[in-house]
Amino acid sequence: MYQNIKELQNWLNVQQLDVAYISDFHSISYLTGFESDPIERILALVLFPQNDPFIFAPALEVETVKATGWPYPVYGYQDSEDAFAMIAGHIKDETTHFENWAVEKGTLTLERAQQIQRVVPNVKFKDDLTPLIERMRLIKTPAEIEKMHQAGADADRAFQFGFDALATGKTELEVMAELEYHIKARGVPAMSFETLVQFGAHAANPHGSTGQTKLLPGELALFDLGTVYDGYVSDSTRTVAYQSVTDHQRDVYNVVLEAQLTAQDAVKPGMTTGELDQIARDVITKAGYGEYFVHRLGHGLGSSVHESIQVAPNNDLVLEPGMAFSIEPGIYIPGDLGIRIEDSVVLTEAGADSFTHTTKDLQIID
Amino acid sequence: MYQNIKELQNWLNVQQLDVAYISDFHSISYLTGFESDPIERILALVLFPQNDPFIFAPALEVETVKATGWPYPVYGYQDSEDAFAMIAGHIKDETTHFENWAVEKGTLTLERAQQIQRVVPNVKFKDDLTPLIERMRLIKTPAEIEKMHQAGADADRAFQFGFDALATGKTELEVMAELEYHIKARGVPAMSFETLVQFGAHAANPHGSTGQTKLLPGELALFDLGTVYDGYVSDSTRTVAYQSVTDHQRDVYNVVLEAQLTAQDAVKPGMTTGELDQIARDVITKAGYGEYFVHRLGHGLGSSVHESIQVAPNNDLVLEPGMAFSIEPGIYIPGDLGIRIEDSVVLTEAGADSFTHTTKDLQIID
Repeated sequence: MYQNIKELQNWLNVQQLDVAYISDFHSISYLTGFESDPIERILALVLFPQNDPFIFAPALEVETVKATGWPYPVYGYQDSEDAFAMIAGHIKDETTHFENWAVEKGTLTLERAQQIQRVVPNVKFKDDLTPLIERMRLIKTPAEIEKMHQAGADADRAFQFGFDALATGKTELEVMAELEYHIKARGVPAMSFETLVQFGAHAANPHGSTGQTKLLPGELALFDLGTVYDGYVSDSTRTVAYQSVTDHQRDVYNVVLEAQLTAQDAVKPGMTTGELDQIARDVITKAGYGEYFVHRLGHGLGSSVHESIQVAPNNDLVLEPGMAFSIEPGIYIPGDLGIRIEDSVVLTEAGADSFTHTTKDLQIID
Repeated sequence: MYQNIKELQNWLNVQQLDVAYISDFHSISYLTGFESDPIERILALVLFPQNDPFIFAPALEVETVKATGWPYPVYGYQDSEDAFAMIAGHIKDETTHFENWAVEKGTLTLERAQQIQRVVPNVKFKDDLTPLIERMRLIKTPAEIEKMHQAGADADRAFQFGFDALATGKTELEVMAELEYHIKARGVPAMSFETLVQFGAHAANPHGSTGQTKLLPGELALFDLGTVYDGYVSDSTRTVAYQSVTDHQRDVYNVVLEAQLTAQDAVKPGMTTGELDQIARDVITKAGYGEYFVHRLGHGLGSSVHESIQVAPNNDLVLEPGMAFSIEPGIYIPGDLGIRIEDSVVLTEAGADSFTHTTKDLQIID
């Protein structure tokens, strides 16, 4: 427990830094097990090279922090107090060297940075913790992978509820509501993002939203959904046909399917994310639909649905065992149809291990 | 239309600034009507004192921006391109003076600030747009207020679905799922935050979450929920008794109710948010429960559920007509019960006009 905090403390030592100020609640959840979005309030995990770390949190969160088993100090503040002055005070209680900081430059705002400068006038924001913590989070532990498999199993159940909900004249919102009802009533506390249900030509906008479009026989229905299991998420997409399918729909579907399967079968450690994207993109381009595949192939996920891996053209991240990411090619033809097929997987020495197992062959739902 | 953009352009002129760089997607939605969370991608609205503004967005969003009626340029980029270099290029195409910037310091991250410094080496982040745009957003227009009334009407419907779903042995998650099913199936596209349903002593943690606690006769059930209507949100809380109520539960309930009603009746333009908080807090303190009211009285809302108003002790924001905020006192007794009653209101010259109208008298649900 707290192994990653110890690693960061060692890193502070090596870099000769005084303070690591961690304020992204996703990072704090990852490092401490305390999970809470403070919204506009102040939440911070403060590390030192030698001394014990502390958590600084809204007063009403203090008991929840302690309940996680956190063995170090936790300090609370009321909305009416000067949180940053209090943080500076606690830091100065621990150490006389407190000016060389590492912060999360990817999430720390200019406003908060200036608040820190107000209370520690000579502070230097030397190193960026964002890539360091992202890097830690990229390589999943067996316990994390197990939770993601559980989330994937819930996503598989959610697909089935969604398929079962399809009926002529039902709106996307009605189908989405029914799907979420069944999965939440069975104990899934939250979706990892707004469930996307799109019918027919409405699915041609990959960044559209679930709306009032009504389902007609012969249309495709796209489901993009994710669930949360003990702080870890799933993210997966299936497109199914309703009652019947045309040759054109099947042809385009099979191009997306081939792109998805080819990429998922080919991925292995040592490949770059750019190479993986290219494998899927080549299949779609060769079939003549390249202009309709308008997004990257995938993204990282774990305790949130968008972690730092970008499976995108020319991206040169080298894939390693333990990395988890989505593989989600799509073809979107305006006025006609939208098809996306997505599994999220964890990479092993042997290749991709998918969290979801709902069939990817074209299903025709009656 | 775009009146606020014109105001910001005038302000740039007066401040002798070259560029306003707006990157918070909530701000962009407010100023342009284009609503999209780019997640880790780049989205920006760039204003100049004289020249036309432009929007810079992921390529797959360009058509959606145009569909809003945006009459100025919109530039797209692919994931593989250097977005910040492209933004700098477009800025340099418009003006030869491009080094004095106003940015949103409340949301712009240090990392993005450094990306800007990379492509505009002599950039100076002179003024902070966050409070300026927050200030614009604080005063709601009649059209915004109408949308918030619609969202409030949906929240009232959602409460009724929730009350109707209560049954002995049902879990909080089951009740939440049923409530959300009914309201989403009737066309509400999204909740404005995770619906909170808490039973009995579980409600004593005001920052807890909906879980597997099962409802028993004689317990209180707390519902904190919000809906989205055309980009505007509701946020409201009711606590009801299930089947029966003890004198103790009723006594505590009536303290919270008196605090809520007293504050909502008393609020008027010219009062500070700190004074409003104090009115409710005094009621609870005099009744002997002060230590159990552990959060601020309320917060601003509008196109998001947390805007910059803080109705909190000692806060000195002066309330004005058109401001919208929640009034939500609560009493949380560990191991016993949690009661919160919340209306969100818009302030008029005559006082508070509530968006929700579900009765606040103690209801006993059979």
